[in-house]
Amino acid sequence: MTDRIRGVLAPVLTPFNAKLEPDVQRFIAHCRWLLGHNAGLAVFGTNSEAASITAAERMALTDALLEAGLPAGRMMPGTGACALPEAVALSRHASKAGAAGLLVLPPFFFKGVSEDGVFAYYAEIIERVGSGCARIYLYHIPQLTCVPITLTLIERLLGRYPEVIAGAKDSSGDWANTKAMIDNFAGAGFDVFPASESFLSAALPIGGAGCISATVNVNPAGIHRVFEGWRGAEAPRLQSSADRVRKVFQGPHMIPAMKQVLASWSGDPQWATVRPPLVELDKATGDRVIAELNAMAFDMQGYPGAR
Amino acid sequence: MTDRIRGVLAPVLTPFNAKLEPDVQRFIAHCRWLLGHNAGLAVFGTNSEAASITAAERMALTDALLEAGLPAGRMMPGTGACALPEAVALSRHASKAGAAGLLVLPPFFFKGVSEDGVFAYYAEIIERVGSGCARIYLYHIPQLTCVPITLTLIERLLGRYPEVIAGAKDSSGDWANTKAMIDNFAGAGFDVFPASESFLSAALPIGGAGCISATVNVNPAGIHRVFEGWRGAEAPRLQSSADRVRKVFQGPHMIPAMKQVLASWSGDPQWATVRPPLVELDKATGDRVIAELNAMAFDMQGYPGAR
Repeated sequence: MTDRIRGVLAPVLTPFNAKLEPDVQRFIAHCRWLLGHNAGLAVFGTNSEAASITAAERMALTDALLEAGLPAGRMMPGTGACALPEAVALSRHASKAGAAGLLVLPPFFFKGVSEDGVFAYYAEIIERVGSGCARIYLYHIPQLTCVPITLTLIERLLGRYPEVIAGAKDSSGDWANTKAMIDNFAGAGFDVFPASESFLSAALPIGGAGCISATVNVNPAGIHRVFEGWRGAEAPRLQSSADRVRKVFQGPHMIPAMKQVLASWSGDPQWATVRPPLVELDKATGDRVIAELNAMAFDMQGYPGAR
Repeated sequence: MTDRIRGVLAPVLTPFNAKLEPDVQRFIAHCRWLLGHNAGLAVFGTNSEAASITAAERMALTDALLEAGLPAGRMMPGTGACALPEAVALSRHASKAGAAGLLVLPPFFFKGVSEDGVFAYYAEIIERVGSGCARIYLYHIPQLTCVPITLTLIERLLGRYPEVIAGAKDSSGDWANTKAMIDNFAGAGFDVFPASESFLSAALPIGGAGCISATVNVNPAGIHRVFEGWRGAEAPRLQSSADRVRKVFQGPHMIPAMKQVLASWSGDPQWATVRPPLVELDKATGDRVIAELNAMAFDMQGYPGAR
């Protein structure tokens, strides 16, 4: 198995062309820029619009990254799906590619499902992918799935599959829950990634593994500085600087807002494209976001294609 | 285009074998039995565990039904998906097969999406499938999708695509909403199917088109009698008789309960199998369901394989 992946990861935004197809070259360029700023690649996360991308498209994009020479050991593809065979196929593909980990959503159509049912889903993935299965990170995002990754579920899965179950992404935004995950399981080698860099200063001292955060897509260097510097005297300043950038994007339109900024930085208006059911940011909000970043003299960190 | 499909439809339960693969032969037999009792085939609905079945599996099952000689004109396959290209592929496939209609879920991962985004999803499906697109029925099931099909959305879609947008399934369980759909749009040829036979006696007199109800899977004849007899003196008795059967299954375990009953009737315990995240019914509940049906001397309507 590859080394553990820790630190700062981006749920990589997925660029689409005018036909709403994934723009492979721009995707590779964005991933390369993120890697260059020490961000790992959590491709096909929520902010990647992964749910809007077919399994075949996800596998083709992963292959394209590998063919472009990007290291699988820095990747944690999202491989969850409502249909078990699809989750198995995606997990098998990413495992064969040598991915450092798999970020696995529970099935999210049915609501009020039992913990036994969610356990069975993860168990079937692990059993079917078999001995080559990459490390699995459980994806807790109850506001979108309505299917929580509970502490008792983690305990059961860790007990049954200690070699595969490696951690979780906690997108609940509930610090008490993130802390409980760390307090209960970090000692057993379970790596907890909160979904916001705002929790880094609190999570790292108690054993958190890093973060997998939307805004790593626009501020990888700033967020990595928080990760590296949390023990130092500069830590509060670094944290508040990253938080200020995050605040610009926070709200219901985070994905289109980040895409709008990349469209501006790259000089490619096509970057603003999203797939339905998301919609592009309205011009006024987009202008406001860009203006706020400019007002804080935000460094675009050498974004490729920047004018 | 084929004739309009109206009346009583079953969101057809999907049998799985011990490897959790679709059991094609048993699926065909179940569909044939349903057709024999005047039920249309809303294959790949919620009760079919459609979200747990891949697009490739859904298309293969549709093909198998056609190869077995079952009439496409009695089918309304579910073709919605979170990923637009998948919804397009499924809709194109079912349209080419000559399906009477497509029952199309909105994308259901993202929450709080705008009506513009949901409109764009349906519009892209219709535009991409093109002139051969089968009639589309909008699937309103907000308790699972958290993405409602609002009256204003229906109005916009009907205005833009009057030839394709043909109706809706209302699974909200909210009679006021079903009535509002009928009152507003039935006059324009928009066919509204409530998701419970309990609404038939109320919906049919004001212009409802029928129902697409889970329990048609176990009581097609009884529910069809309600549909046929709503004008007659026997109507209240027929309705209450169907309602009594429905009540046996109602609750959080409707799908596994119905599968348990088919396992019992067919003598094939494999019918009880569900895919994760659902779980099979516990034995006590299963026994209770069977006992309740027996106590009301419920007629299993010649279920195939019955002992």
